[in-house]
Amino acid sequence: MSESMRDSAHDREHVYRVLYNALDIAKTADGADLDVLVCACLLHDIGRREQFADPSLDHAEVGGEKAYSFLIGHGFDKEFAEKVKACIVTHRFRKSRPPESIEAKILFDADKLDVTGATGIARTLVYKGGMGEPLYLLDADGLPSSGENDCSPSFFGEYNFKLKNLYGKFYTERGRQLAVERENAARDFYESLLGEVRSAYVRGMTELDKFLNGG
Amino acid sequence: MSESMRDSAHDREHVYRVLYNALDIAKTADGADLDVLVCACLLHDIGRREQFADPSLDHAEVGGEKAYSFLIGHGFDKEFAEKVKACIVTHRFRKSRPPESIEAKILFDADKLDVTGATGIARTLVYKGGMGEPLYLLDADGLPSSGENDCSPSFFGEYNFKLKNLYGKFYTERGRQLAVERENAARDFYESLLGEVRSAYVRGMTELDKFLNGG
Repeated sequence: MSESMRDSAHDREHVYRVLYNALDIAKTADGADLDVLVCACLLHDIGRREQFADPSLDHAEVGGEKAYSFLIGHGFDKEFAEKVKACIVTHRFRKSRPPESIEAKILFDADKLDVTGATGIARTLVYKGGMGEPLYLLDADGLPSSGENDCSPSFFGEYNFKLKNLYGKFYTERGRQLAVERENAARDFYESLLGEVRSAYVRGMTELDKFLNGG
Repeated sequence: MSESMRDSAHDREHVYRVLYNALDIAKTADGADLDVLVCACLLHDIGRREQFADPSLDHAEVGGEKAYSFLIGHGFDKEFAEKVKACIVTHRFRKSRPPESIEAKILFDADKLDVTGATGIARTLVYKGGMGEPLYLLDADGLPSSGENDCSPSFFGEYNFKLKNLYGKFYTERGRQLAVERENAARDFYESLLGEVRSAYVRGMTELDKFLNGG
């Protein structure tokens, strides 16, 4: 697993946080098979390396296949390997491919929890940094864009298109509850950062105009 | 300038924020030479590329020399080029090399402002991501370290060793005032992130222990 992950947003501690979130959620979910769930958590991002090398690949699909082969090769039976694979294939948000089993729903929620709150902000920023993407773009008036209508990647765009909309997308009540507890931390950070940079530009552009035009 | 900067923390918009912060501070500083100040702001990180290629180099020293040569080569007189160089050489925090002129103090404060508040958190995270450094290390008990005693690089370490200690290190009253306005945003984010990850580990480790030991 560790060998398949190479950025600071998807590292060994991401796997532990997903595992720990999942076990927390599973306490409230009757009948979850913890053997399947733990296995699916540990292997859920095993397809990251392939997607990183070829972005047209989907790490959830690749990871499901890799996990299945890995488990069969290590003596697990087909029924168990199929259950783990099903969790991994549906852990990434796709409308056409929702998680079905309770274990798959828990993995989905546990992984999404790691994109909520301050944790989601921090992971998004380290990921953007690794990709060399900017914090924000500029609007036509030269001020930092809020990100709501950005046409190319930025942190503010990612916040508006993805991070702020996660909180209604949980399958388990415990997952939703943990997410909502973190919601303010993410919004506060976004609003602080946008306020800081906007006010610097607004004040500075006025002074720059005076300097350049002798006003 | 743009050619000399290659990470999301030190990009073109960093230069604009420093310039805008500096012009804001300069309004409150009698006698600042805005020609020197604007020039020093625009060129202050021009030595980044050399430091990136060879971390034993200091981008402030290299940048001062490069800016001097650039200005002389473009017809500015020696006295002006020396003043700009002096600002750039002292813009990085070094006890042995404090900024002396009012323009140098303003550049220093304007650049440090960009490491305060949510802006400083965001820039540190994208920088850590670009370097592949982790958000946090683990203590001996397996829980996320606060970063106060970290022995290798992490975001929590950088917050404790550098970010949280900036607020008393400004030379101008306006710089200090702008920094202090942002201080809560940085501390709130650090405390939220530490709280989120610690509570996930605490709850999850208890459940994992039950699962592994059948308790």
